[in-house]
Amino acid sequence: MQIELIIIGNEILSGDTRDTNGSWLSKYLENLGTQLDQISIIPDQRKCILSTLSQATHRSHLIIISGGLGPTDDDITKKTLADFFQKDLKINKAAQEMVISHYKRINRPWIPQHNHYHIIPEDFEPLPNPVGLAPGLFFQADSFVIVAAPGVPLEFQSMIKEAITPKNLIDIHPMHQLQIRTKNIAEELIFNEVSVDLFKKIRPFAEICSYPRSYGGVDLVIKSKQDIEELKEDFLNSPLRPYIWHIGNLSLPELIIQMATEKKIKLGLAESCTGGLISSMLTDVSGSSACYMGSIVAYSYEIKMEILKVKKETLDRYGAVSKETALEMAQGAFNQLKVDIAIGTTGIAGPLGGTHEKPVGTIGIGLCTKNFSKSDLFIFRGDRLGLKKRFSHAALHELLEVIKTI
Amino acid sequence: MQIELIIIGNEILSGDTRDTNGSWLSKYLENLGTQLDQISIIPDQRKCILSTLSQATHRSHLIIISGGLGPTDDDITKKTLADFFQKDLKINKAAQEMVISHYKRINRPWIPQHNHYHIIPEDFEPLPNPVGLAPGLFFQADSFVIVAAPGVPLEFQSMIKEAITPKNLIDIHPMHQLQIRTKNIAEELIFNEVSVDLFKKIRPFAEICSYPRSYGGVDLVIKSKQDIEELKEDFLNSPLRPYIWHIGNLSLPELIIQMATEKKIKLGLAESCTGGLISSMLTDVSGSSACYMGSIVAYSYEIKMEILKVKKETLDRYGAVSKETALEMAQGAFNQLKVDIAIGTTGIAGPLGGTHEKPVGTIGIGLCTKNFSKSDLFIFRGDRLGLKKRFSHAALHELLEVIKTI
Repeated sequence: MQIELIIIGNEILSGDTRDTNGSWLSKYLENLGTQLDQISIIPDQRKCILSTLSQATHRSHLIIISGGLGPTDDDITKKTLADFFQKDLKINKAAQEMVISHYKRINRPWIPQHNHYHIIPEDFEPLPNPVGLAPGLFFQADSFVIVAAPGVPLEFQSMIKEAITPKNLIDIHPMHQLQIRTKNIAEELIFNEVSVDLFKKIRPFAEICSYPRSYGGVDLVIKSKQDIEELKEDFLNSPLRPYIWHIGNLSLPELIIQMATEKKIKLGLAESCTGGLISSMLTDVSGSSACYMGSIVAYSYEIKMEILKVKKETLDRYGAVSKETALEMAQGAFNQLKVDIAIGTTGIAGPLGGTHEKPVGTIGIGLCTKNFSKSDLFIFRGDRLGLKKRFSHAALHELLEVIKTI
Repeated sequence: MQIELIIIGNEILSGDTRDTNGSWLSKYLENLGTQLDQISIIPDQRKCILSTLSQATHRSHLIIISGGLGPTDDDITKKTLADFFQKDLKINKAAQEMVISHYKRINRPWIPQHNHYHIIPEDFEPLPNPVGLAPGLFFQADSFVIVAAPGVPLEFQSMIKEAITPKNLIDIHPMHQLQIRTKNIAEELIFNEVSVDLFKKIRPFAEICSYPRSYGGVDLVIKSKQDIEELKEDFLNSPLRPYIWHIGNLSLPELIIQMATEKKIKLGLAESCTGGLISSMLTDVSGSSACYMGSIVAYSYEIKMEILKVKKETLDRYGAVSKETALEMAQGAFNQLKVDIAIGTTGIAGPLGGTHEKPVGTIGIGLCTKNFSKSDLFIFRGDRLGLKKRFSHAALHELLEVIKTI
């Protein structure tokens, strides 16, 4: 079964809005045991929509369209679908009922002059929109099905969840998957030196993919139609072991929150250059409040000194970006937040602020527990947002190593 | 000139990695005065790459390919390009020199058994990779040009910046653009009621697009080949004015940092449910340290009480998620961080923790300055990450309103 997604919208193509529906849909379909085979992102232009529909209807069995169902002039998906299939646009009673009840829900009267939500191509069915106003569209032809949903992520996701369920999907072959997450080793070394023998064994029955630089390292994903859980042991007994930080599909923050919660370890942060990003990554994890206490984002010297109690001499002598300051920040967080492990970060995310000795990309990461403390200086490359991410990943890896030993 | 991007990679399609090259390239080309017309995301599969290349070479003048140039077995872009154009893969001297010097830079010897970076399709030219190992590819045919770059964002972006410059791009028509950013008004009301007359005036010479829900509101973008700066006044004199928070292309955090810096206002935060996200958004802005001092991320009760000095009675009587607690958090940040304006956020991002009176999506936002303080309870809808974003946008809008009045 070939499934494709067509994303219609100038805003995505112009980079004004980042698409999130594509990756969400991929994961959703994967959980249903199938997969997304292609994504096309095209503008709100009749000609382009028509030519993409023509290709899609020839190659795919399920075609999901997002965007262009809104009430305004640039929303031309509905009109173009009608033209493509040579259908008239007509008032649809079921769609009209949906619209009226949506408007009731938000306490506004609906009159047909407001929009054309109730008018859809003949022979199309309206799909209920659980969280928004525009109904979706469903059309079944001999060799394919079309589902069109609004592009707004919450609406798209809610509608797809209702419209595409295991019952609706034929021909499902769940794939077994094993994810090996590494750090500190180059992709080519894994493939051409360290894991050659293991891969030779695996290849006949499984697909091996690699995704570089997730959380600062390389992820390997092994996919197979047969059960491959036993390969976990093979990897842990292989020369790759020292580089593996996780086998499974948890993200770095999820793994940290899970382990810290199990071990009843309280975590806290003192962030300067990461500016709250580490804290935000940890609190993205549902249930993080069980072990994560908080962060002092000390962007100013004053907060470093007054709240984190970093000594003025330390700042004067070694600078704000130094192992010494990072360590005192971690100690400050440890004491002030009353946690079991605290991390301190201080660095230069750029583009300004670098010097010859401490270029943009330099970060000091300090770590403090009841029994020991450590601090190191690292240098990374990247732009401001890339560096904030790398800084945060590096600090979280330091944190994970310590949690593992406790 | 039709430009398209083909992203090759199972990891993007499977949702394991989010694509960032697409939106980056869109913005980059827009700054060069041209635009990206289509994006296709396809798997590392020979058949699919061949059919996409066949379509692309018939419709586009510049075809940019990202991904699949790595050293491993699933990187088949080079081989497939060679097959498509019926070229042999051959050792390329210039490519080999690039590879050798890259390896020198990272202090590792290079031997041809390591990888095939130096072997490229005949008649293709290698493109220097300023930050990584794999050279890119350049091929010029009669009616189109192909540029293939690695998918790793830093490498892709660096290579594109070198390979695609204004000099290389013919047929450039810079578009004038005006961005009107609104909040608290529905898209359809703008188009069908509030701005009907103004849009009637604008339509003959400009394109009007709308992008819903950026920073919690609707953005209008007016694009035209003629100068449209004067339309700014028209919008400010129109009934839309009360809903406009910015005319221009600054993000909400950028606008706040710019205005606070100009007005010499120091900003600080006390975050609970937003978990450091507001702080991270503000520190994404280069130069934010001029006005942004820091945040106390008080995820635990203890930090709320001990560092922010929220009263135990307030927590007991009104709960952690309340106007009262939000206000005391803001006051705590104001006093502890010694700032001119402080914001406090406390809410329920879910999926657990909601009650009948305070469902998931409830947030208290407090605000404190020397002269006044205020606090309100809001309710939003969404999943955990969506709510963290909406909470943060709402708090930043509150902050912006106050900064504007100072």
